[in-house]
This record gives sequence, structure tokens and C-alpha cells, in this order.
Amino acid sequence: MGGRRAVWENLIVTLPPPPAASFASDNAAGAHPAVLAALAAANDGSALAYGSDPHTLECSERFNDLFGTDVTTRLTFNGTGANIVALATLLGSLPGPHHGVVCTDWAHIAVDETGAPERILGSKLIDLPAPEAKLVPEQIVEVAHALGVQHHVQPGVVSITQATELGTLYSADEVAALCDQAHALGMLVHLDGARIANATAALGGTRDALRSFTIDAGVDAVSFGGTKNGLLGAEAVILLSPAAGIGSEYVRKQVTQLPSKMRFLAAQFNAILHDDLWIELAGGANRMATRLHELATTIPGVELAGPPAVNSLFPRLPQAAIEPLRAWSFFWDWDATAHEVRWMTAWNTTDTDVETFIDGVECVLRDVLESSSN
Amino acid sequence: MGGRRAVWENLIVTLPPPPAASFASDNAAGAHPAVLAALAAANDGSALAYGSDPHTLECSERFNDLFGTDVTTRLTFNGTGANIVALATLLGSLPGPHHGVVCTDWAHIAVDETGAPERILGSKLIDLPAPEAKLVPEQIVEVAHALGVQHHVQPGVVSITQATELGTLYSADEVAALCDQAHALGMLVHLDGARIANATAALGGTRDALRSFTIDAGVDAVSFGGTKNGLLGAEAVILLSPAAGIGSEYVRKQVTQLPSKMRFLAAQFNAILHDDLWIELAGGANRMATRLHELATTIPGVELAGPPAVNSLFPRLPQAAIEPLRAWSFFWDWDATAHEVRWMTAWNTTDTDVETFIDGVECVLRDVLESSSN
Amino acid sequence: MGGRRAVWENLIVTLPPPPAASFASDNAAGAHPAVLAALAAANDGSALAYGSDPHTLECSERFNDLFGTDVTTRLTFNGTGANIVALATLLGSLPGPHHGVVCTDWAHIAVDETGAPERILGSKLIDLPAPEAKLVPEQIVEVAHALGVQHHVQPGVVSITQATELGTLYSADEVAALCDQAHALGMLVHLDGARIANATAALGGTRDALRSFTIDAGVDAVSFGGTKNGLLGAEAVILLSPAAGIGSEYVRKQVTQLPSKMRFLAAQFNAILHDDLWIELAGGANRMATRLHELATTIPGVELAGPPAVNSLFPRLPQAAIEPLRAWSFFWDWDATAHEVRWMTAWNTTDTDVETFIDGVECVLRDVLESSSN
Amino acid sequence: MGGRRAVWENLIVTLPPPPAASFASDNAAGAHPAVLAALAAANDGSALAYGSDPHTLECSERFNDLFGTDVTTRLTFNGTGANIVALATLLGSLPGPHHGVVCTDWAHIAVDETGAPERILGSKLIDLPAPEAKLVPEQIVEVAHALGVQHHVQPGVVSITQATELGTLYSADEVAALCDQAHALGMLVHLDGARIANATAALGGTRDALRSFTIDAGVDAVSFGGTKNGLLGAEAVILLSPAAGIGSEYVRKQVTQLPSKMRFLAAQFNAILHDDLWIELAGGANRMATRLHELATTIPGVELAGPPAVNSLFPRLPQAAIEPLRAWSFFWDWDATAHEVRWMTAWNTTDTDVETFIDGVECVLRDVLESSSN
Repeated sequence: MGGRRAVWENLIVTLPPPPAASFASDNAAGAHPAVLAALAAANDGSALAYGSDPHTLECSERFNDLFGTDVTTRLTFNGTGANIVALATLLGSLPGPHHGVVCTDWAHIAVDETGAPERILGSKLIDLPAPEAKLVPEQIVEVAHALGVQHHVQPGVVSITQATELGTLYSADEVAALCDQAHALGMLVHLDGARIANATAALGGTRDALRSFTIDAGVDAVSFGGTKNGLLGAEAVILLSPAAGIGSEYVRKQVTQLPSKMRFLAAQFNAILHDDLWIELAGGANRMATRLHELATTIPGVELAGPPAVNSLFPRLPQAAIEPLRAWSFFWDWDATAHEVRWMTAWNTTDTDVETFIDGVECVLRDVLESSSN
Repeated sequence: MGGRRAVWENLIVTLPPPPAASFASDNAAGAHPAVLAALAAANDGSALAYGSDPHTLECSERFNDLFGTDVTTRLTFNGTGANIVALATLLGSLPGPHHGVVCTDWAHIAVDETGAPERILGSKLIDLPAPEAKLVPEQIVEVAHALGVQHHVQPGVVSITQATELGTLYSADEVAALCDQAHALGMLVHLDGARIANATAALGGTRDALRSFTIDAGVDAVSFGGTKNGLLGAEAVILLSPAAGIGSEYVRKQVTQLPSKMRFLAAQFNAILHDDLWIELAGGANRMATRLHELATTIPGVELAGPPAVNSLFPRLPQAAIEPLRAWSFFWDWDATAHEVRWMTAWNTTDTDVETFIDGVECVLRDVLESSSN
Repeated sequence: MGGRRAVWENLIVTLPPPPAASFASDNAAGAHPAVLAALAAANDGSALAYGSDPHTLECSERFNDLFGTDVTTRLTFNGTGANIVALATLLGSLPGPHHGVVCTDWAHIAVDETGAPERILGSKLIDLPAPEAKLVPEQIVEVAHALGVQHHVQPGVVSITQATELGTLYSADEVAALCDQAHALGMLVHLDGARIANATAALGGTRDALRSFTIDAGVDAVSFGGTKNGLLGAEAVILLSPAAGIGSEYVRKQVTQLPSKMRFLAAQFNAILHDDLWIELAGGANRMATRLHELATTIPGVELAGPPAVNSLFPRLPQAAIEPLRAWSFFWDWDATAHEVRWMTAWNTTDTDVETFIDGVECVLRDVLESSSN
Repeated sequence: MGGRRAVWENLIVTLPPPPAASFASDNAAGAHPAVLAALAAANDGSALAYGSDPHTLECSERFNDLFGTDVTTRLTFNGTGANIVALATLLGSLPGPHHGVVCTDWAHIAVDETGAPERILGSKLIDLPAPEAKLVPEQIVEVAHALGVQHHVQPGVVSITQATELGTLYSADEVAALCDQAHALGMLVHLDGARIANATAALGGTRDALRSFTIDAGVDAVSFGGTKNGLLGAEAVILLSPAAGIGSEYVRKQVTQLPSKMRFLAAQFNAILHDDLWIELAGGANRMATRLHELATTIPGVELAGPPAVNSLFPRLPQAAIEPLRAWSFFWDWDATAHEVRWMTAWNTTDTDVETFIDGVECVLRDVLESSSN
């Protein structure tokens, strides 16, 4: 702390107190009060472990309602776990161990999971270049050239992320086109929805919006994020087609993702699935990012692309401003050599948080720009 | 429910209302109030994810205090996850991928984890017969015959469970003898402590007791259970020797066990590590099992071994009694062909629960024995 | 060598020159002249790699003829490789990664492959006690209790060895009963036939004999051994049912068993499949083992079970005799603590070899017994 | 065959008889006579399996001589197997399972091994763009940014190919610079030498040349190719530093690459290591490729880069010429959309083969160009 203060005290200006909310990541936010209340309520009495409890049953029914049909719901602890359960289940429905997973070179599974897929699935990730972190059907056609050649991993599953790791979105039509192309070539489709709520909020904010880019588009399995959207920690694997879900309960246990006291994960989801609170929370995060963008674009020295699709911004800042600002209210580098950083809003970010943060940014940039012009 | 009531209504007797607590498993119990309170308190404000928060720091320090030296603490979601993180880290400290894990044929890792070790570690489990679920040093000597022979998996890690899957205990001397033998042959030792609290309570109920059969005995890594002892869900991998912990943070992430909002796992442990509440809770469970045993041995038709070391009993019952009793207050079969069942107490089992349960057992057995004598 | 001579020169007796053939193992024998000739012939001209050559085509047709129907033949380098290709293909035809392989605790895959199955398949081997190294259908029923329970590996493939690691044989009826039981429970059957030729010779010595305990009995995949039966080195995976063979060409490559210049493996098999030479060679080895048994039982001090089913004997010898004999003509211990050794015959063992070996055994044992009686 | 002839008979011209040698691949060539003779000689008498034989001992000594120091030699069946043994051994010498392998996006391990590394090593391949299939030290610095971040696979081994998959070469200095950079960052270096003989011949044609880009440059492990250079089938893993070789015998067995009758692999290598025949053979292949290039560049319609470094050419041809030519003397496409094909020479390619092949190319191209100009 002393170190951080030192950096920031070098400034001539006096900074306001930092915002209550962190702009570092949506997983720096805590849990929504309704989630804590649900935990306390679920703690009443005994409940059989491993999913044989009424909260888990309710959760499955809530997901059936959400997707408008009977789906297979497997609660897991975290996003990497959800992705592995989903991918292992889909790969396991294809014959043989020789299928790979097609994804972008920005994909969380390829970049940010310390090789969990390769270790646990034993499968190659075929990561394709994607400037916007989005695949297009032509890329699936391209990798399909490997089909039938015994020397190459056979592409078997296509994994896309919605919202993407770069904060972009697939339209429902784009997902449908990818699913059509994948299915035509015998491949299955996984959607990593760590921020599926933000995507849903951005694409209409309704259950129909969710369905349009998942079940209606032909997606076979979804990692349905909760942790970044107001839970303490829970994700759900939703297997949308009956065939794709076979054996998923064994897979979940085998990959270490079976919760013992599952009622406490189910209760969290039940709290935010109630009255579509999950969409409301993510919508709030998105709105705060838009607001942050509006205000930040007015500050000299902040370089920004257009308004964010969901809840992340990737501004470029004068190098000298980054450390003082970070010391005042922490955020992560995105591309250090380009002085590009990431600011994220969360379900609990308020207008006041945004305004306070913008005040700080303004102060520091003014100070930095004045210093450099002297 | 209708089906269960039908079974039980066939009885002539009228059963009392079932006990509030379940005797099915210690993971059927909820969370201790202090744990819920700690979660609520930890929810205040933002906190960086993945362990860069004050609760996780506090948790590490609490484990350092507990073991009386600086250890490496890695929080994980569940017991299978903790075992895999511990074993992967220990195996990873040995050269090559060709080492196996020696355990008993009762070991949770061998029997109850759906092959997670084989899938994720890629290592053979060398499971040895052990009537009491306990290894002896001679068995380590025996498997060591494989050392140096290229056709055999090389035994590299010995994994023991304390308290064991059969509710038995290793003495501190027994663990030390195993560690000495293992280390003399170049092997490392893991202790699966899903019920380490019950073992600690039974072996003295002090921190010294814990240390006597872990760090002082030479154990290299511990899976330190929390979920069965009053948490909502959290376990800790404790790497006791500095060399054994290298790389464990990467291992945890790779095997899907890195919690995003880690403060919520740390806070749970902090709550029960405070004032050694963890020992007190487990001690209560153990006492209730002893009480249950005292009362059950007086009931004609219940066959039981001697008093339980920790919190599980394995009674044999007349076959006709099992379904009605289970319908009234659920418990699991242990060995269905021998009519052996398992009754477990938990941190929240009360004297009243035990007495109520015993009343029910007495009623049903009296009824069943009278029916069969007519 | 000096060391060995020393041991043997301590004897008073003068030993005859050791036999030309080794009794250490059938893989200590070289290749049959027809195999070398076939290699030389196959070396003529260019041939596309990876199986696109006329020798490999011929080999596939020869195996079709042998089994009386179209089977899928995948040549591999060695026995471990063949087993892994077969098991990975069968496991890959089941949904999910959570199936295990049922075998005996004598199985080569469980004991003598340095954990290759666990590493490469990622699957648990469920090894069952089997005094004669043979499974019985009741054991399959027993392990099937795990079916449907998410905490347990799901038994998916049954792997038996014929002739077994102990030199015993399954009758065709016994194999059929195992297959029926396995199939009834949704499991597939693999037969590790590293010594399938010896089994065939012993069970009738005809193609019908082979078929009776493989394709006719319902076996799904066979590891068809060649190396121990006069080849330089080649094994074949034969997938007997069309469904079981899907993807096997990718599996073979993925597990490092795709031969580049495959013509040279195919030519070896073609040489011994011609005119059923493979049965004749193995029959010779079996006969020599029987002869060895006849003669050895007459020697005081040699303890032997009944006549061998195939080509291995497991005599117990006076401890003092073992090292001198081994120094004279090498063989392996089987159970060192019981002074049990293994003598194996091979395709090239001659009557003279047997008689010479027996002369040596007789000399050493007489000497040892006389020394001990003085 | 009928189909192929049809294509070619559409031509007006009459083609000469095709060359005796194939230009499809160096693995379409057979074995050198000395290799066959060595096999026959090694077949004399019994020999213990798994490497306990004099031929294998001789082979190890020959490799010690070749590299000028005591190295660890592990014979394997094929190139994928050699790569897996080498990489598994190197990765196994690093702590933990969380290290990845850095390579180019042309690397055989990344593209042409059906995911064997991911399946068997469980490790991510970090494949970097490399237009010439060669890594540069700056790329190692770049991937090293992941070091210390728990969310990313830790780069642990750098794998380069020499000669590369594109027929290019690293100079000894380039390899040394890569090794220095890798070692400075705690990484080890593997060299995939499926065509190490061609590289050696091209870089001086002496043992010193070999050492300059392997042991002297700091390479830790080499896959030493034999199959493409006149053997029937054998490769060798050479572990150049003592620490890098620990456990490699177990690794080899575990990954299915332990040959039973190892004398027959050793004898092959002994034949070509004798009097440096291996360099002579590869030098011949290289010279024939140069000759092919000289003659081909004179043919109108053949587009070629500069002279080949080793034994492969990647000409672009008029599309209409490809099928008729291939039907006459088979070769593979390299980049079908660019009408780029691959021609390879082998140890047994003769001047006559080259001239005959060029005659055919000339005939077909003249015919095609005349047709298209009409």
C-alpha cells in the first residue's frame, strides 16, 4: 500500500477518494444480497449431498423454463470446470479419442486455463486467428480439410465464447450460421458463456434473446456463467440436446467438479434466475460500461474504440498515467506494450462509482499531460 | 415420498417424528452459523480475484499458525479436487510421468472419484488390500520391488486417509513409520484428510494432535477437509515441505480448482480455524457417534463392532428393518448383501437427534423381530 | 560373464554346453527364416508409407480370411501398443471418458506396461483377483454394481488374456460366457492375444479353433501377437465387429503406433499367415514345453504343477540351484521368495535344446542335493 | 490404377516408363542392403529382450562415439514415438504437469501427429507462426511473458525441427542462440531430427557438423531419425545431458515404444552408423534433390524457389499437369489451392531416376501448355 501511495503522491493534484466498486474485473465484485439470503435459507435442515436435494431439483426446473424445454443441467464450481465438463461430454459423444476443439486464439480455454483442456481432455485445441475473438463459418470449412486424414487431429467440437474475451458479441444469426456449418461437417458446438448474461442483456434482455443465440441457433452445450454476475461462485453446464448430455454426471465427478453440498450452488442460481434477476444485473453492468465510455471519451488523452457491447473497455492511456491511476483504483493491463488497459464494470457498479472513477482519471490525465508539456 | 411412507406404514408400530439431523452423511449437514456470518462479512466491498485478497492472506496465515511453520496453502472447491491438486503437485516433483500412487483398496481416490486420478494425473493407483483401510510399512516395502524395473509403474507417492474410509485411525506413530519407510524408498506421502478434523478430535483434540500425525510425522501434503465439518464447501491443500509445493498454484488452475472469488472460500475456513472451532465441531460429531453406539448396542437385532473411533457406525440390521427405517430417516447401505448400513453423525447432530433416531430404530426392530417370530 | 561362471564353477559337477535356444522367454528367440525372406522380398522397389502398399493390403485380406469375415486390421509395433490401440478404440466407442477396463490382477496391461493404459487412455483399470489369471462371468456381474453410480468409474470394457499370463487357457465356452455377460451389461470385450497362436495351437490347432474363442465367442477386439511367434516385431489389432473399429486409424497414429514403412510389418505377418505357419510354430513351442515338463518331473528336487497348457513352466527349485543354473542358461525368477522360476519355450526350441537343458538341470540339482545332504 | 491410367492417357504425348524410385517421400524408399544384412546377422541365436543384448549395447556405444561423450540412447519404433519419449522425458524433469512445449505452427508434433503430444503428454503445444518453419530467440522471449502467471501454461520445452518440415535448416549458431535463450529462461530444448542426417550432410557432412548443431549448441534431447534414411524402421532418442535422461527407460515403456526384440532395431542403426554410412546416404538424397532442382528449373511452367537445402522441393505446376503427372509417378500435394506439390528424394534415388522423372515432367508440361495455348 505504501508503494502505491508513493506513486500517486508524486502527482501534484489531489485525487478524490477512490470509488467503492473496483473496475478491475467483474469477479472483484461480491455477491448480490439475494444470493446471500438464498444461501442462508438453503442452510435450513439436512439435505442429501451431490444433487439429491430440492434446491438442485428447483434449479434444473428453472433452467428448463429458461430454455423452454427439458435440458440437462450440471452445476459446477467455476468457469474452467464448466468448460471442461461441457467439452469432455461433447467429445465423449464422438467416437474415439482423436477429436480436437476448434476455437479462436483469444479463447479462454486456449489462453487462460493453464492447459486444463489439454491435460484433462487430452485433446488438441485448434486455435484460429480471430481479430475480434469471433469465428466465422469459413474457418470451420478450412479446418475441415483435416477430416479423413489419419495424421491430423479430427476437428470435433467448435467452441465459441459469448460475450467474447474481447467484449464483442455474436449475433444470433452468426451463431446459427456457425452451428449449421459445424453440424454439416459432423461437429458439435459449445458456447462458453462466462458472460452469457451480459450478452443476453445486450442482445435484447429477454429469455428469447438468450434462446436466439443458444438453443434456437443450434448450440449443443453452454457454460452458463454465474460467478461474474452476482454469485459467490457457481456455474452451470447446460446440455441442450438430449444426446449431448449422456454421461455428463460421471464426467463432472471425474473432472473434480461435483459439489458435495450442492444445495448451496443451486440456491445461488435459483436466486438470480428468479424473476430474471440475472438479466437485470448484467444489464446494469453493461449500462455502467456504456456510461463509463461516454464520460471517458471526453477526457483528453484517453483513446477508446466505439461504445462497448457489454461490460469491458480497453482504453489506451498515456504511459505515465497508468501506474498512478492503478495505485488509486486498481485495474489490469491488457496490452502493456501499447499502454492499453482494461476497465470492467460489474453488477454492483453504480453511477457514483463511474463518476468518481472518471474524476480520478481526469485528474491524473490532466496532471500527466501538463507535466509532459512543461 | 409416497413410496417411502408406504413401506413404513406397513409397520404395526407408530414411529416418532424423524430426527432433525440426517444420519446419512456428514455432508448432509448444512453450514455452521459462524460460516454464514463470515461469508456475509466477506461480501463487503470489492476484492481482487484468484487469491489476491485479505481473506485468503489471513487464511494462509491461519494455516501457518496451525502447523507451526510456513506451509503452502491452496484452497480448493471439494475433496476430489484437493486430492488431485495434492497428488499432481507431489507427482510433479518427481522426475518423469511414470510414477504411481500407492493406496488401499478402500481409498476414496481409488473407489469414489470416478477415476479422476487416472484421468487427470495419468498415473496408476496401486491399491493394496487393507481390511481396516490402513496401510502398513511392510506393504510399501513390498510394492518397492517394482522400483528399477522398466516394465512396472514406479511407486512414487503413498496416499493414506485419516480418518480412514472405514472410520478407523492411524496413530501418529503409525503415520510416522509409513512416512519413514516411504521416504527411505524415495517416495512422498499424501494424507487425504477429508475428515482430518474428526481424526484430530479423536487423537487428542489439540493442534499438537494434528501436528503429531501430519507435519511431525513427515507427511508431505495434506488434503485438509472443511466441507464435512460445517462449511458450505471448501477444502485446503496444505503442502508441508517447501519442496513439495513448487508449482502448486499452476497445478490448481490446471485441474479446474482455482476459485475466482476466493475470499468466499477463505472466509469459511477463517471462521472455523478461529479459536479452533474446527476441532470443537468435529469433536461433537465424534461424541454423538459414540453416544449413538452406546444406545444402539442395547437394541436387540443391531449388530455392531466396538465403539467408533470417529463419526461413523456400520451396523448390521435385520433385512426387513432396513427399508422401513430408511424411509423414516434416510441412510445409505454399506454392504447390501450383508445387510450392513452406515450411520454418520455430523457437527450439528444433537443428543436429541440421537435419541430420536434410536427410538425409531428400537420401534422398527421390535416390530420386525416380533413379526418374524410369529 | 565372469560373475556367472564363478557361480557355476563352484559346482563340483561339469555341466554340458548350454542349449542353443534360451528358455528365458519366447521373445528371446529370433525370427523365422521365412520372415526374413519376406522382408527382403518386400524391400523391392518403392511403396507408399502408412499402409498404402500392397503388402498391407494383402495382410488385411489374410486376416479377413483367417476370421472368415471382413475385419479391421491395424498393424502395430508391439504388444503394449496393440493393447492401447484396441482399448482406446473400444473405449472411444462408448459415450464419455468415464469408463474403465476390467481385467485380472495378473493382466499384462495392469502389471507389465508401466501404466501405459492409465497414461494414454486416462482410464482406470479395475483389476480383479484371479488365481488362474482368468476372469469368470460372476466377477463382471460384481463390478457391474458400479453402473449408474456417478462416484464410480463405469466398467466399459472387459479385457482378458489368451493364453493368460500364467500360461492357462480359456475354453471357447468360457470366453463366450464372458462375452455374453459383458454384452448383456453394455460392456465390450478385448482379448490380449500376445500368445494367441499358442492358445490356438493348444485348443485344436485350426482356424476354427481360433474363431471359436474370438469372433464366434463374441470378442470385439483382439491384440493378435506376432513378435513372440517368430516375427522380428509386429502385432496386429483386429477389430472384429464393424462398429468397434470406427476411428481406429486415428487412434493408432495418436498413440504413436502408426508404422511409416508399414510394408515391413505386413510382410512379416504375411509370411507366418501363409499356410498357417503361425499355428505350426506355436504348436512346436507348446510341444517343447510339454516335453520339458515330462522330463523335468522326473528330476528329484524339481516341483512342478501339471503339464503346461501352452509354452511356459513355473517350476520351484532348491534355492541353491537357481543361480548356478541361471548362470549356465539364463531364465527369470517368477516368485523369488518361493524359489519359483519361469521356463519358456519358443517357436525355435528343439528336442535337443530341451534335452540339453534337462541335462544341465539334472546335473545341478544332483550336485545341490548331494551337497545339502552332506 | 485404371483411374490413374485414364488421366494420363488423356495426354497426347507418350510418357516414358516412370522412374524406379518414388519422389513421393523418403519413407517410400526401402531399406539399404547393409541394413537387411545386419538384420539377418542379428538373427543368429537367442538374445534377451528389451535391450539386454549385445547389439543394443553396441548401438549405445556407437551413439556415444558419434556425440563424443556418454549420452543416453533409447531406441524407438517411429518418429512420433521418439518425439513423445523425448518430450515426456524433458517435461518430466521439470516440476509439475503445467509446462507446455513451444514450437512452430509447421511442427510435425503440432500438425502431423494426430494430437499424440496433447493426448500422451497432456501438455499444450504453444505453436508460433514461422514462415520458414524456424523459431527465433525473440519468440522465446515473447512466450516467456506467461512465466509466473498462474492462468497460463508455463513454457518449459522448446522443440525445433532440423531439417525443418519445409526443408530449411538452422545454422549451428542459430540453434545455439535458441538454446541459450531457452536455458536462460529455464526451458529445455528438443530437436526433432527425423531428417537429422540430411541436415548433417548439408551442414558439412561430418560428425563435427552434427555436434555443432546438437550437443555443442546446447540441445538437451534429439529425436534421431533412421527410418527416412535407409532403415526398415527405427529411431533413436538421444538424451544429451545426463540430467535430461533420468527415467527415460520408464517413459519409453509407458508410451508404448519399448521394442521387445530390440536387437533388430539396434542392428539397423549399427549398420548405418558404421563408417558414417548414415551421412553418406543422406548426402546422396540431398544431391539428387539439388540435381532435380537444376533440371526442373529449366522446364517452362515449373515455378520453384532457390535450390533445396536438403531433399525436398515444393514446385508450383500448372493445375492441369498435376493429376496426369501424379498418375504416372505418385507425389503428394503440398498446398492444393496454390497448385504446389512436394517432390522428395531418398537415399536410393539415382541420377537415372531424376532424369526419368524430369523427362516425364517435361513431356506433361509441354503437352499441357500446348493444350492451353490452343
